[in-house]
Amino acid sequence: MTEPTVLQEPELRPFLPLLYVAWADGDLGHEERTILWERLAAQPGLKPRLREALGAWLDPANPPDAASLAELHGMLERAVLTLGAEAREGWLNLGGAMAKAGGATEPDGALRALQSLEDLLGQEREILSLRTECPADATFSRPPGFDVAALTALLDGEHADVRQKARAFLADPRHRAAYGMEKGAYREKVFGWLQELSDLGFGDLAFPGITTAAGDLSRFLVAFETLAYGDLSLTVKAGVQFGLWGGSIYFLGSDAQRKAWLPDVASLKAPGCFAMSEVGHGSNVADLQTLTRYEHATRELVVHTPTESARKDWAGNAALHARAGTVFTQLEVDGVRHGVHAVIVPLRDADGRTLPGIRIGDCGTKQGLNGVDNGRIWFEHVRVPVENLLSRHAQIDADGRYQSSIESPARRFFTMLGTLVGGRLSIAAAAVSAAKVGLTIALRYATLRRQFGPTSEPETLLLHYPTHQRRLLPHLAATYAAHFAIADLRADFAARVGDGDTRQLEARVAAIKGAATRRGRDAVRAAREACGGQGYLCVNRLPDLLDDTEIFTTFEGDNTVLAQLVAKSLLTNFRQQFERKGASAWVRVLAQRAVDLAAVKGPFTTHPSDAATLRSPAFQLDALRFRERSLLQSAAARVQKRARADMPASQAANEVQEHLVALAEAHADLLLLESFAAALEAAPRDVAVALGRLCAVFGLGVLELHATWFLEEGYLSLVQTRAIRREIPRLFGELLPDVSGLIDAFDIPETCLAAPIAFDDPAHPRW
Amino acid sequence: MTEPTVLQEPELRPFLPLLYVAWADGDLGHEERTILWERLAAQPGLKPRLREALGAWLDPANPPDAASLAELHGMLERAVLTLGAEAREGWLNLGGAMAKAGGATEPDGALRALQSLEDLLGQEREILSLRTECPADATFSRPPGFDVAALTALLDGEHADVRQKARAFLADPRHRAAYGMEKGAYREKVFGWLQELSDLGFGDLAFPGITTAAGDLSRFLVAFETLAYGDLSLTVKAGVQFGLWGGSIYFLGSDAQRKAWLPDVASLKAPGCFAMSEVGHGSNVADLQTLTRYEHATRELVVHTPTESARKDWAGNAALHARAGTVFTQLEVDGVRHGVHAVIVPLRDADGRTLPGIRIGDCGTKQGLNGVDNGRIWFEHVRVPVENLLSRHAQIDADGRYQSSIESPARRFFTMLGTLVGGRLSIAAAAVSAAKVGLTIALRYATLRRQFGPTSEPETLLLHYPTHQRRLLPHLAATYAAHFAIADLRADFAARVGDGDTRQLEARVAAIKGAATRRGRDAVRAAREACGGQGYLCVNRLPDLLDDTEIFTTFEGDNTVLAQLVAKSLLTNFRQQFERKGASAWVRVLAQRAVDLAAVKGPFTTHPSDAATLRSPAFQLDALRFRERSLLQSAAARVQKRARADMPASQAANEVQEHLVALAEAHADLLLLESFAAALEAAPRDVAVALGRLCAVFGLGVLELHATWFLEEGYLSLVQTRAIRREIPRLFGELLPDVSGLIDAFDIPETCLAAPIAFDDPAHPRW
Repeated sequence: MTEPTVLQEPELRPFLPLLYVAWADGDLGHEERTILWERLAAQPGLKPRLREALGAWLDPANPPDAASLAELHGMLERAVLTLGAEAREGWLNLGGAMAKAGGATEPDGALRALQSLEDLLGQEREILSLRTECPADATFSRPPGFDVAALTALLDGEHADVRQKARAFLADPRHRAAYGMEKGAYREKVFGWLQELSDLGFGDLAFPGITTAAGDLSRFLVAFETLAYGDLSLTVKAGVQFGLWGGSIYFLGSDAQRKAWLPDVASLKAPGCFAMSEVGHGSNVADLQTLTRYEHATRELVVHTPTESARKDWAGNAALHARAGTVFTQLEVDGVRHGVHAVIVPLRDADGRTLPGIRIGDCGTKQGLNGVDNGRIWFEHVRVPVENLLSRHAQIDADGRYQSSIESPARRFFTMLGTLVGGRLSIAAAAVSAAKVGLTIALRYATLRRQFGPTSEPETLLLHYPTHQRRLLPHLAATYAAHFAIADLRADFAARVGDGDTRQLEARVAAIKGAATRRGRDAVRAAREACGGQGYLCVNRLPDLLDDTEIFTTFEGDNTVLAQLVAKSLLTNFRQQFERKGASAWVRVLAQRAVDLAAVKGPFTTHPSDAATLRSPAFQLDALRFRERSLLQSAAARVQKRARADMPASQAANEVQEHLVALAEAHADLLLLESFAAALEAAPRDVAVALGRLCAVFGLGVLELHATWFLEEGYLSLVQTRAIRREIPRLFGELLPDVSGLIDAFDIPETCLAAPIAFDDPAHPRW
Repeated sequence: MTEPTVLQEPELRPFLPLLYVAWADGDLGHEERTILWERLAAQPGLKPRLREALGAWLDPANPPDAASLAELHGMLERAVLTLGAEAREGWLNLGGAMAKAGGATEPDGALRALQSLEDLLGQEREILSLRTECPADATFSRPPGFDVAALTALLDGEHADVRQKARAFLADPRHRAAYGMEKGAYREKVFGWLQELSDLGFGDLAFPGITTAAGDLSRFLVAFETLAYGDLSLTVKAGVQFGLWGGSIYFLGSDAQRKAWLPDVASLKAPGCFAMSEVGHGSNVADLQTLTRYEHATRELVVHTPTESARKDWAGNAALHARAGTVFTQLEVDGVRHGVHAVIVPLRDADGRTLPGIRIGDCGTKQGLNGVDNGRIWFEHVRVPVENLLSRHAQIDADGRYQSSIESPARRFFTMLGTLVGGRLSIAAAAVSAAKVGLTIALRYATLRRQFGPTSEPETLLLHYPTHQRRLLPHLAATYAAHFAIADLRADFAARVGDGDTRQLEARVAAIKGAATRRGRDAVRAAREACGGQGYLCVNRLPDLLDDTEIFTTFEGDNTVLAQLVAKSLLTNFRQQFERKGASAWVRVLAQRAVDLAAVKGPFTTHPSDAATLRSPAFQLDALRFRERSLLQSAAARVQKRARADMPASQAANEVQEHLVALAEAHADLLLLESFAAALEAAPRDVAVALGRLCAVFGLGVLELHATWFLEEGYLSLVQTRAIRREIPRLFGELLPDVSGLIDAFDIPETCLAAPIAFDDPAHPRW
C-alpha cells in the first residue's frame, strides 16, 4: 500500500480524481482498475517511484484503506472548493488545480501524460464474465415448486364449500360479467341474477339466527368475496340488498322487526335500499338533514326532505327495484332532537309505482357499476307508523316518550354507523377479488405475449422484462397481504359484530378497507397497462374491473375520511393509556423514544443489510412497528400541543391531517404484513417458500416506499436502503417459476377471465 | 451550562433519558421544557446541586452543547446495549439500568421521585401560542393576486386566434361531450362533429403548403390541444383522420401523392385510417408481419396478411368510416425484403361496402373513446397499383428496381416511424388538456363543497383540508409544467419536422409524451377521487376523462417502450461524445464524477435548507441535472461493461431496463422543470409570483419523490429532505388565494365542465 504522503507528490496530483473515482465509485470494476493500472503505470515521463505509487493505488488485489481514501477525498475537495465552479468544467481545470495546490511548477507534463490516455479502456473487450444466459422460456411452463391445491386451501380457509358454490354460479356462462350493455337492460339482467342467487340461498346466509342456522356471518362474507370474481354490479347489488338493506334491519331492528322483514329480504320478495348519504352530506353522516318528527296523536313518524341538499343520494336499488328502504334521519320527538336514527319507509307499491309523497330520481350513468340502479329520494312529509322505527337501540314508548338503552348520543350514533362495518369489510374483500382477477389476466398474458428481443430468436416474453415484473409482482404481493389481513379480520368480525363496543374492530376494518381498496384499484390499473391495448378492450374484463372498482375508494366510507377515523382511534387508545396510568405512561413513552433514538442513531447500532435479514418478516415487522409507534407518538404530541393551546379539535385535526393519514397508512401496512407473516407460519413448507418471497416483496416494498422517512429517523442506513432496492428485483427473479402457481391458486373460473387472444403462433416467427 | 460530569451523578441517572429526549426530540417545545424544568427541579429529595444541574440542562434559554448531548447519548446507548431488550420495556427498567451503570446503590429514591411526576404536563393549558385563526372562506372568493387574462395569454401563446375558434366550437351545446350513448350512435355523432370541424377548415391546418398557407403545423397542433377540452373521441378521431392518415401521406408521400390525396383528407371526402399495429406486433413495429410483394408483370403491389397475428388491429376509423388506409407492411421486391414501408390501400367503395380481399372487424367496446370506430383488417392478396407505395423516401422504378434515397434500412425505418412523432406530441397535449378540465372541475368543487368542521359554524371547504390540497395541487403544478414543456417542444417540432435527422427531437417528444400522459391520467384520477361520488357520475365528465385518457399511456407508443427509446437516445449522444473526442471524454466524465462526489459528500459541503433556496428554480434545476447526469453516467458504465463482455444488446438493455426507465423519467422531469422555469422568466411580474409557487411545488415534488436517491447520492442532506417536505404544504397554503385564477386561466368553455351540483344552500346549515 502506498503511503498517503505519496499523494502529495506534485506529479501525481492531476491523477488524483481518477484514483479516487477508481475506488470510490462502484461502477469501476476489478478488471477496469486492472487496465487503468497497467495503462497509467506505463505512461512515459513518470518517475519510477510515482509509477509504483500509482500501481499500488490501483492494485485490484490491494484496495486502499479508508484513511488513504479519506485523505485523497479531502485533497480533492479542497481543490474543488478553491477553484469553485470552474473546477467543475472539466478534467484539465481540475487536474491543474490539483497540481497547483501541491505547488507544482510544471504540471503540463502530467497533464499531457493524462491526455495521452486516449485509448484508455476504449477497445477492451471480454474482460468481464457476466452471466449471459437468457432466462429460459421454460420458466413459465414448468410446474410450480409447490402444491397449488394446498395454497388454494390456505386461501379459501374454513368455508371452502361456500366458495365452491359461488364458483359454480360464476362458471355458468349465463353469469359471465356483462359489458357494453344499455343501462336499463343491464340492470334487469343483474336483478335476474340476484334472484337466482337468492333462490340458491345466498341471501339466507346474511341473517344468522333468522334465515340460517349458521352461527355467524362468515359464510355470507366468504360467498360475497368469491362472487366478486364475477360481475361487480351483481356483487354490489347483492351487498345493497342483503348487507345494507337487510343488515340495517338485522343490526338495528328489534327481534320482531327482524322476523317480519328478513325472510323476505333474503328471498328478494322485499327488495330494498339503504338511504343514508345525502347530496349535501356524504361522509359527514351526523349532520344529515332529513328530518323525521314523531306525531303522538297518530303514533306516526313524518319523514321529510327539508332542502335540496337533504335529498337522499346514491342509494343502490332505489332507482328501480326497491319496494322500501331504511332511511337514516334526524329524529325529533316532542320537539327534542335525538340525532340520527333509522326508519323503514315503503317506497313503491306491488306494481312498482312510487308511493304518495315519495319522489325518486335516477343517478344516471356512472363510470362503472351500471348494473346497479342508484337513485335519489325526496320525502314530502311521508307518514309511517311508529313501529317502523328500527328499535333495537331506541324506542318511542306508548306514552310518546323517547327511550334508548344507549345514553350517550355520540355512542348511539356510532352504534347506528356500525351497520356500515360489514359493508366496508365486504368492499375490501371485493377489491381484493377484483385485483386477483386483474392480475391473473395480466400475468397470464405476460407469460404468453412476446415483444422485441434478440435477433433471429423468438421474441422475449413480457414477464422476462424487469419493468414488467416491477409493474405486476408488487401488486400480487399486496393482494396476498390484503387477502390474509381480510381473512383474519373476517374471523374477528364474525365473532364479535353486534357485541357491545366494537370501535377497535371498526378502526381495523376502516384501516383495511382503505388499504385494500386503494391497493386493489392500483393493481387492476397496473394490470390494464401491462396488457396494453388488449387491456383496453371490454371483452378482456379489465376496463370494467377498473371502472367498477374506481368508486371503492370512495363509497362505504371515503378512504381519506376513514384514515382519519383510524388515526383518531389509535390516538384515543394512546390517550387512554395516560388516563388509566397517568403521567407514568407519558414518561414511559419518552423513555421508549430515548431507547428508539439510542437504538437507531448510535455509532454502535448495526444496520444489517444481508439478504437473509432483509427478507425476514421479523426485520420488516420491527421496522413497520417502529414506524407506527413513531408516527403515533409524534401525532399525539402535536395534537396535545394544540389541545393545550385551546385550539378547537377540528382545527387541530386539520393541521395534523397529513400526519394522521400517514399514521393510518402505517397502521394498515403493519396489519397486512402481520397477517401475511402469520399465514407463512400456517402454510405447508413448500408453499411457504414461494409465499415467503412474495411476503418479502410486500414488506420490503413498504420499506422502499418510505425509505426517506426511515433514513431521516436513522432507522435504516443508506447501505440498507440500497440493499433493499437491489433485493426486490432478485426476489422477482426467484418468483418467476412460481408465478403461474400463485395465480392459479386463486381458482378463478375461466368465465371470469379475459377472452383468449388470437395469436395463432405463440412464438411469432419473424420475417 | 452544567458540566457534563454532573451527568455521572448516580441520583441523576434515572432522569437522563428524559433529559436527552427533552432536547433531542423535536416534539418537545420551549414551553414544555420550561414545565419539565420547573417540575423536575421542584422534586423533593433531590440534592440542591443536582436540582441545579437539572435546571441548567432544561433551561430553555441555554441549550446544551453538542458535546454534552453526545455524552448523554453515549451513556444512554451503553445502558440500552447493556440491558438489551429488557431496557426497552419501560421507564423503570431503563432508569434502573442507568442508575446501576453509574454505580448507584439506592436508585429507588430517584425512581420514586420520577414516578411522582404523575401530573407532569398533564393539565397544562394555554402555554403555546399557536396560530388559531381558521383560514377564512373568503380565500376563494377574493380576486386572485394576478391578472388572469395575462396568464391566459401566456398559456395560449402565439396562435390564440386558433384557440378561440376551437373554444367557440366547444362552447356550442351541440358539441358537448357525449356519455352513456350506444356505441353506434356515438360513432355517428362523432363523425358528424368531425365533418363540421372539416367544414370549418380545421383539417386544412394539418397540411402546410397543400391546404393551408401556414408555414408549419403549429396552428393545427394548437387547435388540436384546445379541442381536447371537449369530447376526446372527437379529438382522437380528428387525430386519426388528419394527423395519422393524412400525416402519413404528408410525410411519406411524394408531392404528387400529397396533392392527389390531402385536399380530400382535409375535407373528409376521403376518410381513412392508419394501419400500423398488428395484434402480434404493437410496439415492435420493425417485426410487423403483413407482407407486400411487388409484381412487375402487372406493376402491382400484393398486400397480404399471412397469419392471424399479422392482422391489423386498433386502426381508428377502420371499423366504419375509412374508405382507404395507409398500411404499414414489409416490402418485398424481386425476392428481396426491404423492411417496413407504407402503402395506400382502398378499403371500401363509395357506398361503404368492403372491397374484395378486404375483411374488416370491429375491435368492440373499449374502456373509453367509444366514439372512435377502431377496427381490425385482414388482407387476402389485395392488389393495388405500384403508385400506391408512399414514395417520398422509397420508390420502385419503371424497371421494377427498388430505390431509396436513404441507404441504411435502419434509418429508413426510423424515417417511416417519424410519422408517429406528431401524434405523440398531440396525445401529450391532449392529456394535458384533459388534466386541465379534470382539475378545474375538482378544484371548483373543492372551493364550494363543505364537509365536517367546527361545531355551530359552516362546515369546512374541502380545499382547506391539507390532504385535499396534497391531492390536487401537485397535479395542477405538473399540468402547468407539462403545458410549458409541450409549448416549447411544439415550436421546435413545427420548425424542424421532416428536416433530416430528427432523432433528438423524437426522443424529446417521447420523453414528454410519457411524462404528460402518465401525469395527465394521474391528475384526472385525483380529480375523480377528490369529487367523491359526484366524480363517479358521467354527467360530471370525470369518468369519461378518466376512461378516455387511460389508453394514452399505451397508444402512440407504450410509455415503458418510449422510456427506453429516450434512454437509448441519451446513451447514444453520450457515446458519440467518446467517438468524437476519444478517451479524453471518458476522463472528463470521471473527473466530473470526482467533482460531483467531492461536492456532495464532503464535510465542507453546504446543504442549504432555507425556504428561498429550496424554492428557487436554480436549486431544483441543479438537483435534477445532477440526477440526470448521474443516472446517465452509471447507465453508460453498466451498458459498456456488458458490451465488453459480448452480451447481446437486447439482453444488456434488459438487465439495465429499470435503470433506463429511471433515466428517461429524470430526463423528462428536467425538461418539464426547465420549461416551467423559462416560462416564469417570460411572465409578467404578478403572474410570476403565483406561477413561481406552483413551479416550486413541481420542482420540490420531484425532489421529494426521489429523496431516497438524493440522500443515497449525498446530494441532499436529511435536513434538506425534511425541509422540503415541510416547504411543500407551506406553498399550498400560499397558493390557495390564487387557485381560482390559476384554473380560470385555462379558459375552458363551461360546456366542457361538470354539471352544476344542486346545493340549494352553500353553507349547509346544520340541524
